[in-house]
Amino acid sequence: MLLSTYEVTEPVAELFQFHRGQDVFFMLMLVAFLMLFIRRYEWGVALATMLSFVVAWPLYLLISNTVLGIDINIESVILAVFCAITLVIAIGVFLGQISTIHYITAAVLFVPAYMFNEWFIFSFLDGVLDAGGSILVHMFAAYWGWGVILGLRNRKINDEPMKTSVHSVSFVWLASMLLLVLWPSFVTALLPPEEVLPAMFTCYMALVASALSTYLLSYILKKEIDPLVYTYAMLAGGVAIGATVNLVGPLTGWIIGFIAGLVSTWCFYYLHDWLNKTTGVLDTMGVHNLHGVPGIVGAVAAMVVAGAPLAQLWAILGTLVIGIVTGGITGLILKIFKEPKQLLDDSEAFDMTEARTPDSPLIHGEQHGGTAPA
Amino acid sequence: MLLSTYEVTEPVAELFQFHRGQDVFFMLMLVAFLMLFIRRYEWGVALATMLSFVVAWPLYLLISNTVLGIDINIESVILAVFCAITLVIAIGVFLGQISTIHYITAAVLFVPAYMFNEWFIFSFLDGVLDAGGSILVHMFAAYWGWGVILGLRNRKINDEPMKTSVHSVSFVWLASMLLLVLWPSFVTALLPPEEVLPAMFTCYMALVASALSTYLLSYILKKEIDPLVYTYAMLAGGVAIGATVNLVGPLTGWIIGFIAGLVSTWCFYYLHDWLNKTTGVLDTMGVHNLHGVPGIVGAVAAMVVAGAPLAQLWAILGTLVIGIVTGGITGLILKIFKEPKQLLDDSEAFDMTEARTPDSPLIHGEQHGGTAPA
Amino acid sequence: MLLSTYEVTEPVAELFQFHRGQDVFFMLMLVAFLMLFIRRYEWGVALATMLSFVVAWPLYLLISNTVLGIDINIESVILAVFCAITLVIAIGVFLGQISTIHYITAAVLFVPAYMFNEWFIFSFLDGVLDAGGSILVHMFAAYWGWGVILGLRNRKINDEPMKTSVHSVSFVWLASMLLLVLWPSFVTALLPPEEVLPAMFTCYMALVASALSTYLLSYILKKEIDPLVYTYAMLAGGVAIGATVNLVGPLTGWIIGFIAGLVSTWCFYYLHDWLNKTTGVLDTMGVHNLHGVPGIVGAVAAMVVAGAPLAQLWAILGTLVIGIVTGGITGLILKIFKEPKQLLDDSEAFDMTEARTPDSPLIHGEQHGGTAPA
Repeated sequence: MLLSTYEVTEPVAELFQFHRGQDVFFMLMLVAFLMLFIRRYEWGVALATMLSFVVAWPLYLLISNTVLGIDINIESVILAVFCAITLVIAIGVFLGQISTIHYITAAVLFVPAYMFNEWFIFSFLDGVLDAGGSILVHMFAAYWGWGVILGLRNRKINDEPMKTSVHSVSFVWLASMLLLVLWPSFVTALLPPEEVLPAMFTCYMALVASALSTYLLSYILKKEIDPLVYTYAMLAGGVAIGATVNLVGPLTGWIIGFIAGLVSTWCFYYLHDWLNKTTGVLDTMGVHNLHGVPGIVGAVAAMVVAGAPLAQLWAILGTLVIGIVTGGITGLILKIFKEPKQLLDDSEAFDMTEARTPDSPLIHGEQHGGTAPA
Repeated sequence: MLLSTYEVTEPVAELFQFHRGQDVFFMLMLVAFLMLFIRRYEWGVALATMLSFVVAWPLYLLISNTVLGIDINIESVILAVFCAITLVIAIGVFLGQISTIHYITAAVLFVPAYMFNEWFIFSFLDGVLDAGGSILVHMFAAYWGWGVILGLRNRKINDEPMKTSVHSVSFVWLASMLLLVLWPSFVTALLPPEEVLPAMFTCYMALVASALSTYLLSYILKKEIDPLVYTYAMLAGGVAIGATVNLVGPLTGWIIGFIAGLVSTWCFYYLHDWLNKTTGVLDTMGVHNLHGVPGIVGAVAAMVVAGAPLAQLWAILGTLVIGIVTGGITGLILKIFKEPKQLLDDSEAFDMTEARTPDSPLIHGEQHGGTAPA
Repeated sequence: MLLSTYEVTEPVAELFQFHRGQDVFFMLMLVAFLMLFIRRYEWGVALATMLSFVVAWPLYLLISNTVLGIDINIESVILAVFCAITLVIAIGVFLGQISTIHYITAAVLFVPAYMFNEWFIFSFLDGVLDAGGSILVHMFAAYWGWGVILGLRNRKINDEPMKTSVHSVSFVWLASMLLLVLWPSFVTALLPPEEVLPAMFTCYMALVASALSTYLLSYILKKEIDPLVYTYAMLAGGVAIGATVNLVGPLTGWIIGFIAGLVSTWCFYYLHDWLNKTTGVLDTMGVHNLHGVPGIVGAVAAMVVAGAPLAQLWAILGTLVIGIVTGGITGLILKIFKEPKQLLDDSEAFDMTEARTPDSPLIHGEQHGGTAPA
């Protein structure tokens, strides 16, 4: 071997970084399928994800390049997809509560708010620990989204049924399980080459721990597992490990993940309903339970691990405030437009007549031996 | 860093190239799920894809190795999967119109035709711009496929219902969204290492632009979005950017993608029916709307960008003619065999009785609380 | 280029190896979807997979690190995911036959047994050929799993209906087709960099051959294709090539795959029922047909190719015996616990009432134009 350990040339490092970045694009799409469990509202979730992504990603690059004078390179491309995936997580809070076309409006309003918070954490403050996005991505997504529903104050959403079907939830299982596999690429996307592998192991440790602890707690509390709580809270370790992924070893990673899984499960079973009753607004996908609280857990864990730097505390509080305020303004703006004719329903954007009508037994039934749509 | 920018050693470059190549295999499989929207014809699409792939890929390598004397290496493996994915796109034109076993026949006839066109574009002609396959892959797929249906002249297909179900279309969303993510690996699969990253950015720019423009045009024209038009036409930017992906920057990429999305959407809504009425034959999956016309748009864009080299024009015309003629011969040969007992229906190849029969309420209904298949 | 062919620096090789390792995690998750075809038993398969994985993977690393004193590095992380995927394959033999929580018990008992067999093959014996896991992974999975059902002796499982639905099987198609694409990453995960690319080509050759031969044999034997036999047996080439993937060229790889596809198909159509009748126990997912027998085919192929080293024979016999004995003990231990209230049914772990109830036509039917669950 010619080069000493962990000397990786620039172009090779960039190509590897691109592959991790491509995994983040992959995750962005899978987040849509994580949110696809409502049987009457599936395609609409996918379309909302696409519109958010295709506006936010180039808009971030455009502002970054023309306003801030930053070159378009692998790092800015990944920072832009971080921005886009944060938005895709954030729309989970108000999915089904606005007209489809206004996900474009939301995206345009989101990008500057996100960039302001990014500047606040990493340029205004000094020494914030958040290599894997516990604060930048997860906390901001949850609190900006909550700002939007607090601004929108759409109370009719509370009367909408959110029934699942077997296969709408099977898509969620697929998305969640693949997100777990890809997660290490996300938290290491911006790390220097020599930190990537140890951070990946630590991230997997956190994820297997939360996927165990959420099952155990659900089993103890309820005996019957709620598949949506499990498929969501099992990822809490990935959310929480973001802030410390390059600072702790596998065992500490496992412990952080285990705690995050317990906390997220508890949030889904108890905090969710309490917040809904207290505020009167609905966090459609329970984003706060997976991204908000576990994001805080992760950010606080970094304070404990690294001896409590004050900057970390300011980053947590600042993100919370900036998120709720800019999200709230967005919600008030979105309130100007007409409400969608149907909440939480694909028929808001698509003609669903054909797809929802089962095959008639009179047309193909006899020769094929069955009549059910599948 | 020891090495200067963009000096990547041969074996490292090959390993990276293999990962991009593996992404193309991935895309080949996802193309099957992009075409899975007909509720009575899903498994048959997957099986047709598999048979096409498992014959075309090794056959290309066999001919390349034994007839043309080319070594089996990473480049020939990727060229072979380009051939296979072109066939998988092309069968979309006549899916459901031939017996399953004859996808093998079609594959055997396709490979030499494809290789002849490949030779025509890149060896006979000089200076054709098509690094990412707008002509080689997409145009040839569309026109060879159209040759087949013109040769087959199966008019009964026009009377077959093509009804969707919610989840058959959800699979299409999944496939389309993941194809978007993987697309940059496809258009950069054969580029030298130093061109890979800029080309990947340009490709994503083209894709987010078409995914925006197809939504906007659909919304303006129809108000209600056709999910199949959206999930297909959103990829038109990737098709069109193939010819210029290593020649243009992000902004030009975005513009090419935006135009391609508009054109493809228009083709799906208007050209498709007009061609169907005019010719009497049916392009089952609308391959011409996503691959044919946007492929031409991309090839022409390269003429504009690079100052209109004549070779490009010959490549477009030649591919069109070679595609339709060799496809037409294939169609005439396929016409010899007996027509499938069912068009566009899984029961042509599989016993569907059980899978299409919903659970009886008498067997498991009471204790489980429901009777629907899911 | 500065470095001579196939000199890859250590850190670059490790980063590449990690990407192959991440693909194995991906495959582990997809194995769950390969086993998701029973319409009443889908989420339970995913949950069982998760519990097996999240216990086995860290437990292997824990034992490896604390008992055997091996550092946690990229190699041990991959060896641990090999252990975990072997367990996920193995539970396929007894899926639906134990309570969900006892997949944790099974995992705890599996890991030491797997590590003992790993030691037996690669440390006790000398010169065993199995770079891609035909013996270590596939054979051990099948025979340990069979040990479990022989120990459990749950005969009620034979009376359970295993009905499919269209989309439960579409998930299987998706999983199988993506597993084929990822398979080369699995068989090359532990190879040195210079052997990776040729082995990847050989692996794809084996896979396209089995995906062809299983179709041809099914077509000849049955005319109508059983989609589950096809989606499973098409992967037999990947199972069988494991032992010789770094020893043979593309053509030999194709031949080994072709034979493996024939053998696996035959096992699914004939051996499966014979074993079920003879032993009285049920291999739920037919693991023996895809992993057991093709694993032996692969291991024997290595004897033929490399001139029949005796160690290979001992590895085959030893794995068979160690698998059945340690699996049998596990089965006897699992027999102590109460039987699940429902076999092969998601309602064992989840409340299925809502998901299995179709939309009432009275609630949303009129305005949406349909009443079918999707």
